[in-house]
Amino acid sequence: MKTFKNVAILGVGLIGGSIGLALRGRGLAQNVVGIGRRQESLRTARRVGAVTQTTVNLEKGVAEAELVVVCTPVGRIVEDVRRVAECCPAETLITDAGSTKQSIVEQLDEGLPRGCRFLGGHPLAGGEKTGPAHASNDLFHGRVTVLTPTKNTQAKDYDLLEQFWIQLGSMVIRMSADEHDRMIAVTSHMPHAVSVALAASLTEDCFRLAGTGLLDMTRLAAGGPEIWKPIFMLNRDNVLAALRQFNQRWAALEAAIAAGDEMELERILTLAKKNRDALGS
Amino acid sequence: MKTFKNVAILGVGLIGGSIGLALRGRGLAQNVVGIGRRQESLRTARRVGAVTQTTVNLEKGVAEAELVVVCTPVGRIVEDVRRVAECCPAETLITDAGSTKQSIVEQLDEGLPRGCRFLGGHPLAGGEKTGPAHASNDLFHGRVTVLTPTKNTQAKDYDLLEQFWIQLGSMVIRMSADEHDRMIAVTSHMPHAVSVALAASLTEDCFRLAGTGLLDMTRLAAGGPEIWKPIFMLNRDNVLAALRQFNQRWAALEAAIAAGDEMELERILTLAKKNRDALGS
Repeated sequence: MKTFKNVAILGVGLIGGSIGLALRGRGLAQNVVGIGRRQESLRTARRVGAVTQTTVNLEKGVAEAELVVVCTPVGRIVEDVRRVAECCPAETLITDAGSTKQSIVEQLDEGLPRGCRFLGGHPLAGGEKTGPAHASNDLFHGRVTVLTPTKNTQAKDYDLLEQFWIQLGSMVIRMSADEHDRMIAVTSHMPHAVSVALAASLTEDCFRLAGTGLLDMTRLAAGGPEIWKPIFMLNRDNVLAALRQFNQRWAALEAAIAAGDEMELERILTLAKKNRDALGS
Repeated sequence: MKTFKNVAILGVGLIGGSIGLALRGRGLAQNVVGIGRRQESLRTARRVGAVTQTTVNLEKGVAEAELVVVCTPVGRIVEDVRRVAECCPAETLITDAGSTKQSIVEQLDEGLPRGCRFLGGHPLAGGEKTGPAHASNDLFHGRVTVLTPTKNTQAKDYDLLEQFWIQLGSMVIRMSADEHDRMIAVTSHMPHAVSVALAASLTEDCFRLAGTGLLDMTRLAAGGPEIWKPIFMLNRDNVLAALRQFNQRWAALEAAIAAGDEMELERILTLAKKNRDALGS
């Protein structure tokens, strides 16, 4: 078991807080330093036991870190990693938890000051409830974490980070950043867009007939615009391709209903059921 | 508390089975007769305790019924109610649990043989797992059931059925059949179509990056084609109107992403979150 003396987490929301809780709950880190901009989030992170100490001062926060996990919104990650690399110990490994990888990895792969290295990661976990108050020490249990090494990645860094996520309960998949972004657009960003459009299309007069299906289908839409706007912007081309993939089936379904084409309708319903059943639960 | 000596349930799937379990669990009916076409479903319904006796013979099944609940797929309900009315005791109240109401109510409101009456109902409950094996005695707890009386409905029938559903744990809303169909197209049928198109658009190579969001968004698509094809057909005009309501937001969202219009994107994300938060959990 690989244990750490000091792990710093920049951004203690749902993901950062859950990493802290999982590290502490499993006895994997002696000190977990939560770094943030808002005292309130930091207080909550301390209160729920996600971190052992907190600070708004980045320099102080990463001063003794062996590993820094940057859990800020994707639009801020590149800048945050660079700021961390300016003040953390030389040779420190820095990773992230962002939902997009290609533009982040591209910009950081050219090298960081003083021998620090960046290796991109993305734990496929989350929930519509954000913030450290909803953090959970088993958020990553049984979920997939994607790591996106490049030709510049050192094997020991990959191994360390792989072990880190496995110890938090996650399964680790290795993938290039651009493959990750193309696939995650289909499995996460496009479904999020669908949920958003669905929730935005509702009118209040119908709320009283909302059943569990509608609640499930709109749950993602409760996610914050501050998280999702940069994701859609940073992964725009892949997201647009995934939206078109949905559009094809959607148009076929609408046409089948409009035409009363029961055979085609049955074909689409059957294909959907087959895919859904294959996904598991 | 209104209790029954004999309630007959035609179609003992998830809904019919759950009605039986709830009736028996609350001591509301002495005999619950499950009527079906497949011995296997009937056996399962008996095994889980949803019914006290079963038969494939409709005439026998409804011979002593004070209330008959028809829980077959919507395309069969009109015919099934007419068959029940041919052989149940005179003056029996018959209801259903179908997801569409207008065409069913219209056809049955003209009167049934021997003083029997039909009053349409729709419990907004269910799940992607169908069949009596997944029936639950609290499936209706805290959910809404819509009743759709007409000018021909007798007050005592409405009162009886309202009490029936309230005793099963449901809240009851009274609504005209056409208002029901228009609203349920938005809150149930359209979201189902969205889930189906989403699931049908997936390709297998992406399955390993499926997260909880995708699982939630495609859960409805596991529902059986034999249930959903007739729903889309019977409520076609309202469904098409609801699909267009989704299309407007969807096109706006796609255009905002394509144009990199962050203000418009934020507006849609914020509206979606506001609606979702208003729906509750």
